[in-house]
Amino acid sequence: MNQNQECRKHAPIGVFDSGVGGLTVVREIMRQIPNERIVYFGDTARVPYGSKSKDTVTRYSRQIVRFLQSYQIKTIVVACNTASAYALDDIEKETDIPMIGVVKPGARTAAEVTKNGRIGVIGTEATIGSKLYNQYIKQLNTNVQIYGKACPLFVPLVEEGLWQDPVTDEIATRYLTELIDIGIDTLILGCTHYPLIRSTLGRIMGEAVTLVNPAYETARELKDMLQCRELLNDKRPALGENQYQFYVSDMADKFKNFANSIIKYGILSAKTVNIEEY
Amino acid sequence: MNQNQECRKHAPIGVFDSGVGGLTVVREIMRQIPNERIVYFGDTARVPYGSKSKDTVTRYSRQIVRFLQSYQIKTIVVACNTASAYALDDIEKETDIPMIGVVKPGARTAAEVTKNGRIGVIGTEATIGSKLYNQYIKQLNTNVQIYGKACPLFVPLVEEGLWQDPVTDEIATRYLTELIDIGIDTLILGCTHYPLIRSTLGRIMGEAVTLVNPAYETARELKDMLQCRELLNDKRPALGENQYQFYVSDMADKFKNFANSIIKYGILSAKTVNIEEY
Repeated sequence: MNQNQECRKHAPIGVFDSGVGGLTVVREIMRQIPNERIVYFGDTARVPYGSKSKDTVTRYSRQIVRFLQSYQIKTIVVACNTASAYALDDIEKETDIPMIGVVKPGARTAAEVTKNGRIGVIGTEATIGSKLYNQYIKQLNTNVQIYGKACPLFVPLVEEGLWQDPVTDEIATRYLTELIDIGIDTLILGCTHYPLIRSTLGRIMGEAVTLVNPAYETARELKDMLQCRELLNDKRPALGENQYQFYVSDMADKFKNFANSIIKYGILSAKTVNIEEY
Repeated sequence: MNQNQECRKHAPIGVFDSGVGGLTVVREIMRQIPNERIVYFGDTARVPYGSKSKDTVTRYSRQIVRFLQSYQIKTIVVACNTASAYALDDIEKETDIPMIGVVKPGARTAAEVTKNGRIGVIGTEATIGSKLYNQYIKQLNTNVQIYGKACPLFVPLVEEGLWQDPVTDEIATRYLTELIDIGIDTLILGCTHYPLIRSTLGRIMGEAVTLVNPAYETARELKDMLQCRELLNDKRPALGENQYQFYVSDMADKFKNFANSIIKYGILSAKTVNIEEY
């Protein structure tokens, strides 16, 4: 292995999301491949992406890729279901950097675990409207039916901190009843905020339904991909090194507070970037 | 009166908001001064403003002002509480066009109608955090106490269409209980979405509390200002003329549907603009 390859191993992983939701993916990466450096960007000035169009989400994602490239990242994780659904296919053609989105890993797991062939997907309007989960699952397993349901209130409820709350129960029951009636046996949590209300969703769906968390599956697939390309970092960064860096387009303090409720590691700082300049 | 002044009378009024909320202000302008032309811009690609910083909201507002100026507007109504609170003071210094925000008219009415001197203000985090309502009310009436309460879930609940719903009742009760306990007699609906859940808010606050709708007060003040400057349009635009024009930065179809639920007039079209280019 040459020195260049050795260098690339130690390069950081770029992760981006429309805001804070992608931190559930970061959390999984930290758990599963703890030696890796991460540069995270959350587009808090333009959040949410889930109600925006394909063109807009692609333009925003392109700017973020340019920003992350300035950190010599070895790979990019699109930790946002909407950007994975709308922008990933376009932006990965535009650079040599390998990219992973959260949609394919979640789709693959769901196609594997379903027994009765009825899979539910919940997410933002954009993710559900794109039908991209359907498309990927159908490529892997043509014998399944996929039922999508947009749940636009889950993100604001999670961001308001109502992770365990009768209001969240009531809204979740309304959204999920039709999926229960259809008799799905697998439910994809197709938005990075949703793992934070996983226990509520699990209780309402019942024990017979397997919840698929794309954040977990994405970190697993990322590990495999890095291993396969001999890019896995084999040395833990030294203490005092800045292993995790967080950037946002707005409201760095609020981001830091929310991030610290998700990642127990303790995020020391988040810096603001004017992303429209990229 | 010269021809130039006569021309300016017939020029449109520019109105902008972070998204659809400003349509409650448009609705009041249509009712109170039905001869006026309106050019509306809703920043649906970057909505919401209420959780963003002063710098970001000011930068966005500046771009929108440049866009509206391309329509030779005679005045600008900042139909967004957050932009009125954060950006208006800066942007009105940068042009000769007279501007009106929604904060001052609401503040003035509240200062006039309170009897016990206890005024509540509800709005987004940004509006409440800015304390701008407090500042204006105190300038007019030093003998009052102002109690602000951020209600971040109201906007998503309104946009989800839950205008009359037990969940909205429950969330409103939680947000408003502390204002009821304080014994306020006046409540400012400090976000343009809130007039749409006015009946819920009124029921929870009780008959003794006066609700102040800044959208209504702003249209009234706009009429006075135009009258005073001899800029009120005295001729109704001819049938077939495009009296109302709507522009958004994203998702024009969704905007049109929501707009048609607020404005009974019937919005024929909304066009998409790339606002970052302004």
